[in-house]
Formats: sequence, structure tokens, C-alpha cells
Amino acid sequence: MDSRKAIKKLLADVRRGKVSPRKAFASLKDLPFKNLNFARLDYHRCIRKGFGEAVYCEGKSPEHIKKIVRDISGKRGYILLTRAGKKLYDYLKKDFPFLKYNECARIIYEDKLPRKSNKIVLILAAGTSDIPVAEEAKATLEVMGNRVKTAYDVGVAGIHRLFDKMSEISAANVIIVVAGMEGALASVVAGLTDKPVVAVPTSIGYGASFKGIAPLLTMMNSCAPGVTVVNIDNGFGAGYFASLVNK
Amino acid sequence: MDSRKAIKKLLADVRRGKVSPRKAFASLKDLPFKNLNFARLDYHRCIRKGFGEAVYCEGKSPEHIKKIVRDISGKRGYILLTRAGKKLYDYLKKDFPFLKYNECARIIYEDKLPRKSNKIVLILAAGTSDIPVAEEAKATLEVMGNRVKTAYDVGVAGIHRLFDKMSEISAANVIIVVAGMEGALASVVAGLTDKPVVAVPTSIGYGASFKGIAPLLTMMNSCAPGVTVVNIDNGFGAGYFASLVNK
Amino acid sequence: MDSRKAIKKLLADVRRGKVSPRKAFASLKDLPFKNLNFARLDYHRCIRKGFGEAVYCEGKSPEHIKKIVRDISGKRGYILLTRAGKKLYDYLKKDFPFLKYNECARIIYEDKLPRKSNKIVLILAAGTSDIPVAEEAKATLEVMGNRVKTAYDVGVAGIHRLFDKMSEISAANVIIVVAGMEGALASVVAGLTDKPVVAVPTSIGYGASFKGIAPLLTMMNSCAPGVTVVNIDNGFGAGYFASLVNK
Amino acid sequence: MDSRKAIKKLLADVRRGKVSPRKAFASLKDLPFKNLNFARLDYHRCIRKGFGEAVYCEGKSPEHIKKIVRDISGKRGYILLTRAGKKLYDYLKKDFPFLKYNECARIIYEDKLPRKSNKIVLILAAGTSDIPVAEEAKATLEVMGNRVKTAYDVGVAGIHRLFDKMSEISAANVIIVVAGMEGALASVVAGLTDKPVVAVPTSIGYGASFKGIAPLLTMMNSCAPGVTVVNIDNGFGAGYFASLVNK
Amino acid sequence: MDSRKAIKKLLADVRRGKVSPRKAFASLKDLPFKNLNFARLDYHRCIRKGFGEAVYCEGKSPEHIKKIVRDISGKRGYILLTRAGKKLYDYLKKDFPFLKYNECARIIYEDKLPRKSNKIVLILAAGTSDIPVAEEAKATLEVMGNRVKTAYDVGVAGIHRLFDKMSEISAANVIIVVAGMEGALASVVAGLTDKPVVAVPTSIGYGASFKGIAPLLTMMNSCAPGVTVVNIDNGFGAGYFASLVNK
Amino acid sequence: MDSRKAIKKLLADVRRGKVSPRKAFASLKDLPFKNLNFARLDYHRCIRKGFGEAVYCEGKSPEHIKKIVRDISGKRGYILLTRAGKKLYDYLKKDFPFLKYNECARIIYEDKLPRKSNKIVLILAAGTSDIPVAEEAKATLEVMGNRVKTAYDVGVAGIHRLFDKMSEISAANVIIVVAGMEGALASVVAGLTDKPVVAVPTSIGYGASFKGIAPLLTMMNSCAPGVTVVNIDNGFGAGYFASLVNK
Amino acid sequence: MDSRKAIKKLLADVRRGKVSPRKAFASLKDLPFKNLNFARLDYHRCIRKGFGEAVYCEGKSPEHIKKIVRDISGKRGYILLTRAGKKLYDYLKKDFPFLKYNECARIIYEDKLPRKSNKIVLILAAGTSDIPVAEEAKATLEVMGNRVKTAYDVGVAGIHRLFDKMSEISAANVIIVVAGMEGALASVVAGLTDKPVVAVPTSIGYGASFKGIAPLLTMMNSCAPGVTVVNIDNGFGAGYFASLVNK
Amino acid sequence: MDSRKAIKKLLADVRRGKVSPRKAFASLKDLPFKNLNFARLDYHRCIRKGFGEAVYCEGKSPEHIKKIVRDISGKRGYILLTRAGKKLYDYLKKDFPFLKYNECARIIYEDKLPRKSNKIVLILAAGTSDIPVAEEAKATLEVMGNRVKTAYDVGVAGIHRLFDKMSEISAANVIIVVAGMEGALASVVAGLTDKPVVAVPTSIGYGASFKGIAPLLTMMNSCAPGVTVVNIDNGFGAGYFASLVNK
Repeated sequence: MDSRKAIKKLLADVRRGKVSPRKAFASLKDLPFKNLNFARLDYHRCIRKGFGEAVYCEGKSPEHIKKIVRDISGKRGYILLTRAGKKLYDYLKKDFPFLKYNECARIIYEDKLPRKSNKIVLILAAGTSDIPVAEEAKATLEVMGNRVKTAYDVGVAGIHRLFDKMSEISAANVIIVVAGMEGALASVVAGLTDKPVVAVPTSIGYGASFKGIAPLLTMMNSCAPGVTVVNIDNGFGAGYFASLVNK
Repeated sequence: MDSRKAIKKLLADVRRGKVSPRKAFASLKDLPFKNLNFARLDYHRCIRKGFGEAVYCEGKSPEHIKKIVRDISGKRGYILLTRAGKKLYDYLKKDFPFLKYNECARIIYEDKLPRKSNKIVLILAAGTSDIPVAEEAKATLEVMGNRVKTAYDVGVAGIHRLFDKMSEISAANVIIVVAGMEGALASVVAGLTDKPVVAVPTSIGYGASFKGIAPLLTMMNSCAPGVTVVNIDNGFGAGYFASLVNK
Repeated sequence: MDSRKAIKKLLADVRRGKVSPRKAFASLKDLPFKNLNFARLDYHRCIRKGFGEAVYCEGKSPEHIKKIVRDISGKRGYILLTRAGKKLYDYLKKDFPFLKYNECARIIYEDKLPRKSNKIVLILAAGTSDIPVAEEAKATLEVMGNRVKTAYDVGVAGIHRLFDKMSEISAANVIIVVAGMEGALASVVAGLTDKPVVAVPTSIGYGASFKGIAPLLTMMNSCAPGVTVVNIDNGFGAGYFASLVNK
Repeated sequence: MDSRKAIKKLLADVRRGKVSPRKAFASLKDLPFKNLNFARLDYHRCIRKGFGEAVYCEGKSPEHIKKIVRDISGKRGYILLTRAGKKLYDYLKKDFPFLKYNECARIIYEDKLPRKSNKIVLILAAGTSDIPVAEEAKATLEVMGNRVKTAYDVGVAGIHRLFDKMSEISAANVIIVVAGMEGALASVVAGLTDKPVVAVPTSIGYGASFKGIAPLLTMMNSCAPGVTVVNIDNGFGAGYFASLVNK
Repeated sequence: MDSRKAIKKLLADVRRGKVSPRKAFASLKDLPFKNLNFARLDYHRCIRKGFGEAVYCEGKSPEHIKKIVRDISGKRGYILLTRAGKKLYDYLKKDFPFLKYNECARIIYEDKLPRKSNKIVLILAAGTSDIPVAEEAKATLEVMGNRVKTAYDVGVAGIHRLFDKMSEISAANVIIVVAGMEGALASVVAGLTDKPVVAVPTSIGYGASFKGIAPLLTMMNSCAPGVTVVNIDNGFGAGYFASLVNK
Repeated sequence: MDSRKAIKKLLADVRRGKVSPRKAFASLKDLPFKNLNFARLDYHRCIRKGFGEAVYCEGKSPEHIKKIVRDISGKRGYILLTRAGKKLYDYLKKDFPFLKYNECARIIYEDKLPRKSNKIVLILAAGTSDIPVAEEAKATLEVMGNRVKTAYDVGVAGIHRLFDKMSEISAANVIIVVAGMEGALASVVAGLTDKPVVAVPTSIGYGASFKGIAPLLTMMNSCAPGVTVVNIDNGFGAGYFASLVNK
Repeated sequence: MDSRKAIKKLLADVRRGKVSPRKAFASLKDLPFKNLNFARLDYHRCIRKGFGEAVYCEGKSPEHIKKIVRDISGKRGYILLTRAGKKLYDYLKKDFPFLKYNECARIIYEDKLPRKSNKIVLILAAGTSDIPVAEEAKATLEVMGNRVKTAYDVGVAGIHRLFDKMSEISAANVIIVVAGMEGALASVVAGLTDKPVVAVPTSIGYGASFKGIAPLLTMMNSCAPGVTVVNIDNGFGAGYFASLVNK
Repeated sequence: MDSRKAIKKLLADVRRGKVSPRKAFASLKDLPFKNLNFARLDYHRCIRKGFGEAVYCEGKSPEHIKKIVRDISGKRGYILLTRAGKKLYDYLKKDFPFLKYNECARIIYEDKLPRKSNKIVLILAAGTSDIPVAEEAKATLEVMGNRVKTAYDVGVAGIHRLFDKMSEISAANVIIVVAGMEGALASVVAGLTDKPVVAVPTSIGYGASFKGIAPLLTMMNSCAPGVTVVNIDNGFGAGYFASLVNK
């Protein structure tokens, strides 16, 4: 129910004596944020119920993460842990046997949402070294209930391999391009399609790739329009965004 | 018709003597690219017929731009010229009286596409100085046939102004956030909504804003997921991408 | 009156029939933000009533600024325009004859607040070229009702000039240090005093000063504790912050 | 006693034959700096007596640190060791059993100063990973005799958590904001309060956060005035500065 | 045979009934890329047959690399593995006993191409620490069938050592200059010869060499024309390019 | 004649009394450098006789340049002036009527060398704004006696335009790729050919293209081998290098 | 007289009743700084009397500079104004007819110091565009009383021109190397001599020279020891330092 | 003997038949470089004989270094190994028992040169963490025969500690300033003396010190003239340069 309507009803109830001013005050106390969060209720349902709260695990202690998982579970939220090692999974599994693990994507999750639609998110990765980031995007998308296809090792050094995927590109609703080194794949793909392209620079490379700055700049400056960029190695962010678009 | 079918039919016709090998060769000559562009035909219709070819005018001479406009017109494509001054418009108008001008957005265009749907793209700008970039995004979206709403001067320095726009945020299908200086608006908005947020850093600011690098990094590192980023001041790119998503 | 009390009273009035639910709803509608801004009311009084809304003028058209000034005046707010040229002042003066101008500080303002206390903010500038930034800080402080002293050209190249100011340094409540080139003055001053030092790097210098990055980094890395830093050339920000501290 | 008075008395004593010129010379020998430090005496009392000399331990050998601690103890100064591991503490404790340890803040200290006033320094941390830096600020403040409150995990991704802390924000005298990733929290808080905000960027994040450069720039460019910035991860520096302001 | 001719012949054969339309279609299916790759056929022969596919091993697991090697072998391609450790070689050797190893160059390869010509590629390295990168270039060149000479430790700090190599410089067809620290050797060599100079900056150095940025910029800005630059430490890239030129 | 032979002959002549020791000494005086330049004689012939000495005109006064031209003419060297405006040409033409001007390339030159061979250097430019840099490369190549072909506006945003040029790519001996914005064209071309690719990043673009840094990094990190890079906007350098390769 | 002795004598005089405590106090009051500046007296004589106070004119108004010149003149100090245009000189000359001007060096000065010694400072400039910076160094040196020789256009692109200057290099006591673009000259010269080399990077160049960063890094990383570096374009600083060394 | 005279004599001998043309040619063959190195002979004596060849050990294998030491010993040159660990020393000592080790400076050397003069090089270090770099400079200077004094922990945070060293500063001939963090010490010292100051930035610090970039920029931009800078942590370079100056 609309919070405006809720307030009107509450006031009428107060007027009619059905609700005491004191009780009404208690109800109103939280209204500012409830009202604020108005638009976020659905969102919260999605975040907290859908695929749970995403937790970036790097640099957090296993004990700390266990506590967070317990909190989310207590609120009956689903769970998505990114950058999670096998060891962490083994540690958490003892207490939370329902958790699952995707080792390549380094993602721990509770369960996948039921598939919402048949629209496809296509993930293209330029090189084999970019696969872990691509898999993080894929796992995020699947946990959030999307249908995903992937094509790896389709970088521009051998552009015929990309062209072999033209029908997949045509069939996709959103495309994620994962590329390190010079990151040219994003521009090339955006030039071949009218689907939104979410580009993920990776830290793959050496020297003047500057741990991902080179592909980040490349993607930022794409001469083909239709490309937006997320942080370096941020497969989760790309997957999350693509899922919002894919809805 | 599917190019594979086209080839099969052609071969059958050759076999049956309905098409000479020479003629068949001429038809096949362009097939590689036709085949390639398969997926792109719709896209091309959109690009070339829809809102025309986008031309970035800065640093191009008026004569050069006139030539490009003539070329596009000749192919019966629509036109979108970005970063175009009033002077350029006056110059082009003589030869192409059908051109229209949006001075704040610095965009010259031929015509707007018919509105495709009622889904709204909401554009939020942090400060009044960010408005020209926001307007470039808006004009691009409208020319491409989208419904657009805007809310300007809603930066985080006076966050209540942003909260006054909660219902607009709830109602939008895609949100573009335009912000310079520290660019914090993108994170805050992404924390309030489950709609995809396309962030545009602007070069507004001085000193350590480094002509837009500060907000670009801020947006890249958004602690709230659901944000992707385009190039500094790239209102056109954000509008174009949002239009692809909004379809 | 406390907004919580206000709500309670309102609810009691509704209950008693003194206020209709509809009218009560209208009152409540803005409560979320009023409530939110609870803590900000004093602040707003200070911002909006005290020295008015600060407007950064660079890159805004005179017409635009005139409109902003009119808006603020309409709300009976005081005015502080930074980075304002003489020309702009002459332009605005016609319509707003009450405006005053500090040419060196490039600040247009309505009136100074009555002096709040006798606590002194001391502004030290390393070189004569840093004076405009120092004067911006000074003007901001004075408009906000602070007592200010200055000592210019006391950079570390001739450190005896700084030591001549030891008694002023002792007497100050807050110290602003303005320095370009290598910006070493902030560390040296922080090593000599137990007062908070607000450091302002300036874009004075050339070559490897990189338009203020060198002094910014110097100040960030001060080996003497007690230093915080604002943006390059941001005299207003330093003055504003020092005024908050000086209260 | 004032050094000027001290000199006058000394000279009178010489005149009266109570002090020999030789002894007087010995006393005067140090006067230049004593005189210089005139203003710094109180400061020194604070630094050397109050919470002792702050020593940054990273990269120093345990033996070296033990020697420093012995020197300070010999002068009856109090001690504050930052970035100190548990191992170092165990090592030092054998010789200096009076030392205490705050493991989360990684701070070794001798004793806390008696609380000077009831004015509160509020420390806000955006994420749970920012807590160690926040705790370093807190421990520094407490050792220096300040009253401290904290609110962690109040980043802008879930801005309602921040708004839940509005009363704490209202009640504070100085606010420290600790944030990594995009660091937007500082701007948002400064927009909500008229208290001075000391911002600490942290190196939390990855990719384009560039080990803290992203939040540093964000904080530097805060669109809300009233923010100053210390070095990346410098919880001690923020606490020290806030303590100077809080006096 | 020219693919155009191939198509014409195929069509004639269809016409004459020598080839069925179905079989012709199967042949044509790959034609787009075959046609596209027209120019690349020779190239592919060179890449795939000549020295095999180059694989950058850093960050790839031994199992992954073994799989790649098996794939290439299956297609009867030759192999070149760069940045390969001794351990990896020992691991691969068990399954692929025909593999050879150049430890200094850290390159695993199958076999060298027969020497194509007597034209010499000369590799100059500024310091002894630059030798591994130089050796990577050398091994790449030799595997690709080039004649190579080297002169190491000829940096500009002792320029007479370089001049002792004037006759080798005169006799070379292409020159590769490998240098770290300040990278001045490339400019000096380019000033002494009219042969194309391919410059490889190395990450040798410390402090302001910024892991190779300093020599990269030096080489980019060579005041002597005739220099092009590859990525930092990219000995393979320089060797590969020089081999293309040397053909 | 070989300088070694020259010395031997000279010594024989001294022995035979045909040349006096004094005269011989005068001849020998310059021999060290002549000898040094041994390898460079041909080169010098090429540089000084072939297309003259290349002079970068930006930032030099017309008077200064006139003096340089006179010097070179006096030595009967040919002339190549880069970054030269029309005004400069008009100024120089009065005194040196034999000079010619290529306005698009902004190059003043004396005469073209006779074509040395029929091997083609192909210049590809990604966008129309990159043409001036491409033309600088072309003019340099032609003055140095090379056969040049160009294909402009073949950027990856519309990759079919590039594929239309496959036969030109196949026919070239060396390829120069000129591209700004994200510079992806170099990688794509290198993936399509086995010819050496010389990449020229241009300063075309805005925001995060950082005046050419983005395409420079892209080209440096090309995932396809066979690419080397020259300085931003350095069409001359690319042309010069390609000419050395093409010989 | 030594300030220690002065104090002892003063105390004895007080003791003996020759000086009153009050008068003694007045004398002592300034002693801290006198004592401090002890070492600086000679220096000051040099700075203030020798070649006057150096004033960097860029960004200062003519009126401001006139005031500074008057101040220095009043103290009978000599004057050195750097980065001074012809216009400024004409303006100052009216009031200070004794001023002289070096247009190429853009330096205004009062008079040259008498030559102190015959030791030579040699200034080498790589290109003709570096000459103004070299001339600034030269003028500074001459005003400070040094003997200076110069050799311009001796960059490493034509290294024989540098070798023609070997005898000058041998004869110098200190060498200043001025170079833009890649700045390799400093390393080469340091490899040829055992004299201290002071390197001045210049902002000459374009693209990846980044306004002098490239040569600055080159010089910082010189593989030949014996090189120190001053700021970009800082001819004055190099001349000043070389003069200190040359004394 | 002068090489010019040598050539003249040789030619006369050829003329007179005392030397055959063939023999004369052999003599002349090396003359270019002999002549070139003319000026370098003294230098070489200094480098090779004086303190031997300096070898940077980091990243070189012990075996490699042993070979270099053997080479230098064979030529009867002295030895200076920088960045050398204790382990390396123990390894080398077995074969070269005459080697000595300075553990703090991490320098291995053969012997110190006899003291050349009594002129003092003073080394100031800002913090205790800067001492290893300062000691590297000191050891280099002593091996090269200089008299050295040091004063450590005299950073600007407690500037009185620096002023206690005024007499040492006055007495020095050259001053080396070693400082990390913000590096302000160099400017302050240069403001107090007229001796040349060689500044060494160190990588001490964290966050925005960027591993030494902050102090490097500070030192580059010193507002007090008389400062030149060497690479980050380059104690050897500073010592070597100071030794050249001190001669």
C-alpha cells in the first residue's frame, strides 16, 4: 500500500479513535524512511529476497563473513558472496550446508532465483585469462534468475572467432564484454549490434596495461556508441547491471 | 530472408540454369558482409533511418560537416550532430532548412522519432553547471523516440532535494545521473533504486577534480551496484545507451 | 519546537478534532524531510540566513547568476559569490545595489555577519602569488562572522619571516596555510603549533608542480600531524571549514 | 612561566649576583628554541606528556621501536604507537608492562588522558572493511582524552542506515568520515550537518579505486562545503586533528 | 588458389552438375571468412605452421597450458610459449617430448623455422639486467627463421661500448633496442643508423622509472626519427614485429 | 667510397708524397666522425639529400625557420618542414620559390624523391578527424619516395568499411594505422594481416581519451602481435619509420 | 662576532653593571633569529647584495613587480627578474633606468657581479627550441659572476655534434644539460665526463612528452651517475645551483 | 700525448717511411674512439681506479655478480656494490676476502680512497626510516674519499632539531637532504644555507606519498633555489654527485 494512503488512513483512524495518538506516533516514527524507501521496497525485495545481499569477501576474515551470513540468513535473505576462495566455502559450509560454490567464478550463493524470462544475456570474453571475471558475471546473472550464454576467447586478434558468434550476438538482449590488454573487443562488438553493451576491463596484461587502466580507457572512449563501463575486474557489477536491464 | 537460405536457393537456381554462374558470383560477392551484417540490418535501420548518423562536430570544419550532412541526406538517413554551436547551425540551415537546433544541448537534428513507448528515462543532474551535458543526453533520447523526465540541481550537498524526486525515481525505467566535482550522486541514487543507473561524469569543478577524473573514478567505484559509466561529458553516449536499454 | 513533539501534538489535535485528517496530512507531508533536517535547521539558518548560499561563479553566465541571486534574495537569504570578476559585480550591482565586492578575493557578498567571538583564524600564505586564494578564505571567514588575521609571504625559503609570526601563531584558534609550489609551509607550521591547520594547496608554480598536485601531495603527507587539506585553490572551502571549527 | 619573564628574571639574577654569567649562559643556550617554542610549550606538554609521541611502526624493527619507547619513557613522555602488530606488542610488553594494546586499531599506548570535555567526536565508517582505520582514529582520540561515538557500515549504498544516525550527527562536535571505494559518504554527511567533517579515504576497493586515490579525489571535490581531507588510511591523523578541534 | 576463382569454379561445377547444390553450400559456408581471410591465409600458414601460436603463459595454470599445447599439436601447428618457467617446461616435456626450452628467454618452442634469409636482426641491450627481455626477442626471431646478432651492455653510460658495435649496426637490416632505466639508448642508436629501430622499454630500474614508464616515454619521444615502441618488457612483440619487417 | 679505403689510400698517397702530411691531417681531422658515420653515410645521403632534414616547425619563429631552410639549401640538402601553417609557407615561398606545400598534412617540402619501388605503404585512418595526421604520414612517405595508398574512416564502429579494404590490406608491404578515441583499429588490423603495423595514436577525442593517452595505451597493449607505436599525432614519425621498412 | 661570544659578553656586562638587565633583554630578544641566521648572513649578503632577490614574474601584475623592485632597491639589493617580458621591462625601465634586459632569457637584472673565478660552467642544449631555457640559466650564472660557455643543438639525434664539443666538456667545471622531448642528452653527457651534470627537462615536445614529464623521468633515471635534476623549464634554478657549485 | 699530435707524428712517419701505410692504418683504426675518450681518460681513472665500477645488485644473481667482481678485479679496478644483502656479501667474501661490508648502507666495497680534502659533505635525514638511504649516500661518499657528517631525524615536524644543526650546516661544502613523506626538509634547508643541496626523495610513507612521488615533487618545486633532485631512494646517486661537486 502506498505510504501516502497509509498515512491518510492512519490519521482517519486516529480521528475515529480507532488508533491512539501514541500508537500512531510509533507508526509514524518510521514513516520518513518507509516513505523514502517507497520506491525501494520492490528493490529490497529483489536485493534481500531475490539473490540476497552481495558481500565482497576479499580482505574480510572468515569469522566476519560467517557473522554476516548468519545475519542475512536470520532475516531470511538469500546470499551472494563474491571473490570467495574454496577455503572460505569449506569453512562456511559446515555451518551453512545449504550454500553452493562456483569455483571458477569464486562465488558462494544460496540458491538461484527461478528464471524470470527467456531473454538472453550474452557474455563475451576476449581471452582465456578473462574467463574468471566473465564467470563472476555469469554466476551473478544466474543467481539473479537470468538466462546466460557465453562465448570465450573471441578477442579481436582473431576476429573470425568473434564473427562465428554473430547469431548469438543477434539473439542476445544485453551483452557483457570482458576484455583485458587493450580491450578493443567492446568497441568492435558495439559496432556490430544495437544491444546495450556493458564492458568490463580486466587487469589481465602487463607493462602499459597498468593493471586494467588501458582497457578501461579504451572502453570509455569507444568510438561505437552503446557501451558503458564498470570497474576493472568487476564481473559482479556487470552481471548485476545487466540483470537490471534484462528484467 | 536468411542468408543461408538465400545461398541455397541461389545454388539451386544455378543448378537449374535459372541463374548464370556469372550472375551468381556477382550476388555472392557481397554475401560475406551481407551475411555478417545480418544481425546488423535492423540495427542499421535504427541507426541510419531512426535518428540518423551521430556526428561529433568539435574540431571539424563547417564545410566538412556540411558535406557529411549532404551525404547522409542523400542516403535518406536522419541526422544528429552533437557539440554543435549556434554558428554552425546557422551555417547549415541555409542549405538544410529542415534542420532543428537545441541550443542548450548543442545538438542539431532533423526530426524526432515517433515515441516508441511510455517507459520513462529520468535524467538527474547534480548541479546547474551539469545541465548542458544532461540536455545533450535528453535531446539524444528524444530524437531516438524516448520519453524523458529531468530533475536538475539535486546533488548530495542538499540531499533533501533529491528525496523530493523519489516518486520520479520510482517511476523511471532507466536513470541517467550527470555529476561533476565529486560525482557522489550516482552512488546515492543507485542505493535508492533498482533501476539501471547510467552515470556521466562531467568536467565541472577545478583543482583535484582533474577535468572529470574525480567523478569518473567515484562512479567507477560506486559502492552501490547497478551503475555503469560513460566517458566524461558524454551526454550523447549516456542517452544513446539508455535508449537501447529503454527499447 | 522538536519535530517529534510537533507530530505528537498534531496527532493529539487530530484526535481531539482540532485539526482535520486532511490538514494534518498536508502538515505531515513535509515532515519526513523536516524531521530529517532536524539537525540541519540551525545549519540552514547559518547557511541560508547567515552568509547566504555560496555560489561558485566560474563558468556560469551573468544572466544565470543574476537569477540565482534573485532567488536567494527572494528567500531573504544572504549571498556569497566566489570566483566573481569585477565585470560580474558591475553587472549585478545595477539590480542589487546592496551587494559588496572584494576584488582581490574575487568575492561578491551581501553583508558580513556580526562578529560571533574574538577567537582568531590566522591565514598564512607562502608567497605573494598565493594571496588571492588567501583573501578568498579571509573574505569567506569575515562574511561568516569571524575575526581574521593574515601573514603573507612567509614561505619556508626565508623561514625567519615565519618565525617573526610566532606570537600570531600562538594567539590563533585555527590556522589556514595557503601555499603553492612545494607547499612545505603546512608541515612546518603544524610542527610549530598545537592548533588545527587547514592547508590549501594552490596552483601557483610550473612544470612539476602540475597545477597544484605537488603541494596537495606535500600537505597530504605532512610529517607533522594536525593538518587537513582542501582542494587546490579552494580558499572558500578552507575559510568555510575554519569558520565551522572556530564557532 | 613565560620565557620572556624567565629571561628578564635571569638577567636580574645575574645583575644581583645570584646567578653566575657562566650558569646564565648555559640556561640561555637553549633559550632560542625555548623562546621559539614559546607557543609550542603547551603543545609539547600535550604531545610529550599528554599522549606521548606518536610513532608510526610499519617498517621499523622491533629493536628500534623498543629503543624509541625507552627514550620516551625516560623523558616521562606518554606513548602512542600506530600500525603496531600483536607480535610487536607482545615483544614490548616484556620490558614495558604498563603498555596497553588495541588490536583492531593496531595501536599500543601507555594510558589514556583524563577526559577533557563532554564534546563528542563522531566517527562514521562507510563499510565494515573501513573499521580498522576508524578504530585507529577512535583510539587516538580516546588516548588524547576525547569522548568518541561511532557508527559503522553507514555507507551511501543503503542511505537509510545513515539517516538512522541523524541524532548522533546532530549531537557531535566534530565528525570523522572514513570511507573507501568511491568515498561519497563525506559529501553526503557534510550536506546534512554544520559540523566540521574530517574525511579519511581508505585503500579499500580494487581496480579503479587505485588504492585510495578514488575516495581521496571524491573527498577533495566534495560539493558540500565543510570537508577537509587527510592521507589515505590515516586514521591517526584524522583523530589527532579532530582532537585539536575538539579542545 | 584465389577464393574468387574458387567460387567461380564451384558455381560452374554446380551448373555442370559436377557438384550438388548441397555440397556446394557446405563449401561456401566457410567462404565468408575464408574470403575475408584471403590475405591471412599466408599469414596463418606462418602463424600456425611456421612458429605456431604464441601463448603468454604468465597467470595460466600448467593444466590449462597443456590443453592448449595439445590443441595446437592436434592441428599440426608449431608452438611458442612465452614467459614460461623451467617448472612448466619440465611438466610439459613429459607429454610433449619434442618441446625445447630457452631458459634465459623463458621460451618453450617446438622447432625453429628454416632460416629464410641472411638479413640480420641486431638486438642491442643497454644493461645486463635487460638481457632476459632481449633473449625473448632473440628466441622469437630465431623460431620464426631469422638470423640474429646481439650486443649486450652497450648502454649510453659508456657510449664507447656502443660505438664498438658500429659495424654490426651498419650490417643489420632491423635493430631492436632493449633498455630500462631512462631508455636513452633507442634515440642514440636511431641517430646513428638508417635502419628501422624497434624499441623495447623494460621494467628495470626503481623509483621514478615507474616500472618501465620512464623508458617507454623516452622512446616515444625520441628526437631521432626511425623509432617505434612496443609494450614494456615485450621482447616477444619486438621480435615478432622485427621478423615481419625482416621478411 | 668506403672510409677505410679512403684512409688507406690517403696513407699511401702520403707515403708516395702525393699528399703532404699537413693536408692529410686536415683530411683525417674529420675522419673520426666520418668513420663513425660510416654506416650513416648512406643514411645521410638519404636524410640530407633525399628528403632533406625534417624540421618540426611548431613553436619556432618564421625568421628562425627561414634561417634553417637557408642553411639546408646551402648544403644542397632537401627540405621537409612539418607542422607548418599556410602563413609560414607564404612567408618562406618568397625567398624559396621552389618550396611546395601540402596544406592538409601541414608539410612544406622541396621535392619528392623518385619512387624507389612499387611496394605499397597503406595508411588506414579510423575517423575523419584523424586525417591530418594520416596525411602527414602520407606526405612524409611520398617525399621519401614511397608509393602510398590510403583508406580513411574505416574505424571499428563500422567494421564492414574496414573489411571492404581487405584486398588493399593484402597488397600492402607496411601498414600505418592512425586512430584516436579508443584506438582499437590497430589491434583489429594486426589480427587481419601479417604485415608490420605501425600505429599512430591521435589526440582526437575528449574526456578520458586524455589527449591521446587512451589510444596510445590501447595500441601498446595490442592483443594481436605485429604492432609498434609512435608518439601521439606523430604522423611524420610513422611515415619515416615505414619508409625505412619499405626500402 | 660569534653570537655565543656575544651573549657571554653581554652577561658579563650585566654582571659588571655595564649594561642594564632591561637593555640586555632588548638585545637578547632578537638573538634567537640572529643566531639562527648566523650561517645565513653570508648567504644573505650573496642573495640580497650579490645578484639581488630573484623574482618569478609570471602571473604577477606589473604594478606588483614595480613595488617589489622598489623594495629591493630601497634595501640596496641587486635585482634578478625571471620570466619577464619585453613589455614589463619597458614598463619598469621608466622608473628604474639602471635595469638591463636579456630578451632571449626573458631576464631583467641590475648588474652582473664581478667575475669570481675562471672556472667554466658549460651549458648544453639538445635542440634549438630549448635555447630560451638555456639562456635563462646562462643569464642567471652571469649575473651571479660566473664564466659561462654554451653549445646548442647538440642533441643525441646527431651525436657527432655533441662529440665536436668534447674539449669544451673536458674544460668545464660544471655542466648544465637542457633537453626536452626524450631528454637523453643528460645521460649521454654524464657518461662522457666526471663533472657534475645539472639536468633541466624542458616542456618542448608534444603528445607523450607530457609537457616535460618524459625528459624529467629520463633524467631522474639516468643510467650514468653524476646527474641531478631541477624542475621543468627551470633554467634559473639550474643556473643558481651551478653557481653555488662553481664557487 | 695529444691525439692530434699523435696523428701528425704518424703521418710524418709515414711520409718519412718510418711507418708503413698498413701499420699506420692499424694505428689509426682505433683513433676515433681514443680521441673521443680523450677527455674521459681522467674520468676513467677516477671511475675504474678510484672507487671502482658501481654495480646495482638488486635483481642480479649472486653468480652474475661474482663474475662482474672478478672482471673488475682482473682490471685492477676498485669495487662498489649497492643494494647488496648480507647473504650476497657472505657469498662473495669466500672468493674475494678483501671485500668489506656496510650493512646499514647495504654496500659492499673494496677499499676507501684516501681522503682527498677536508671539505665536508653533510647528510641530513628527515626521519629514522630514511637512514638506510642516507647511509648509502654516506658509504658512497666515503669510498670516494670524502669527509662526511650526518644528522638524522631532523625533519620539519620538530624544526628545532634541525636548528640545532645550524653550525654543521654552515660548515658543510655540499648538503644532501634525504626525506620521505612530504619531503619538506629540502626546501627548509635550502632556505637556510647558500651551499648546494642535493635532495633524495625516499619511498617512506604510505597512501598519497605514492612510494616517493610526493617528496620527489616537493623537492622539484622547492621555493628556495639551490636544490637539485635525484631518483627516489637513490642514496648512491646523491653521494656520487656530491662527491663530484666536493672535489
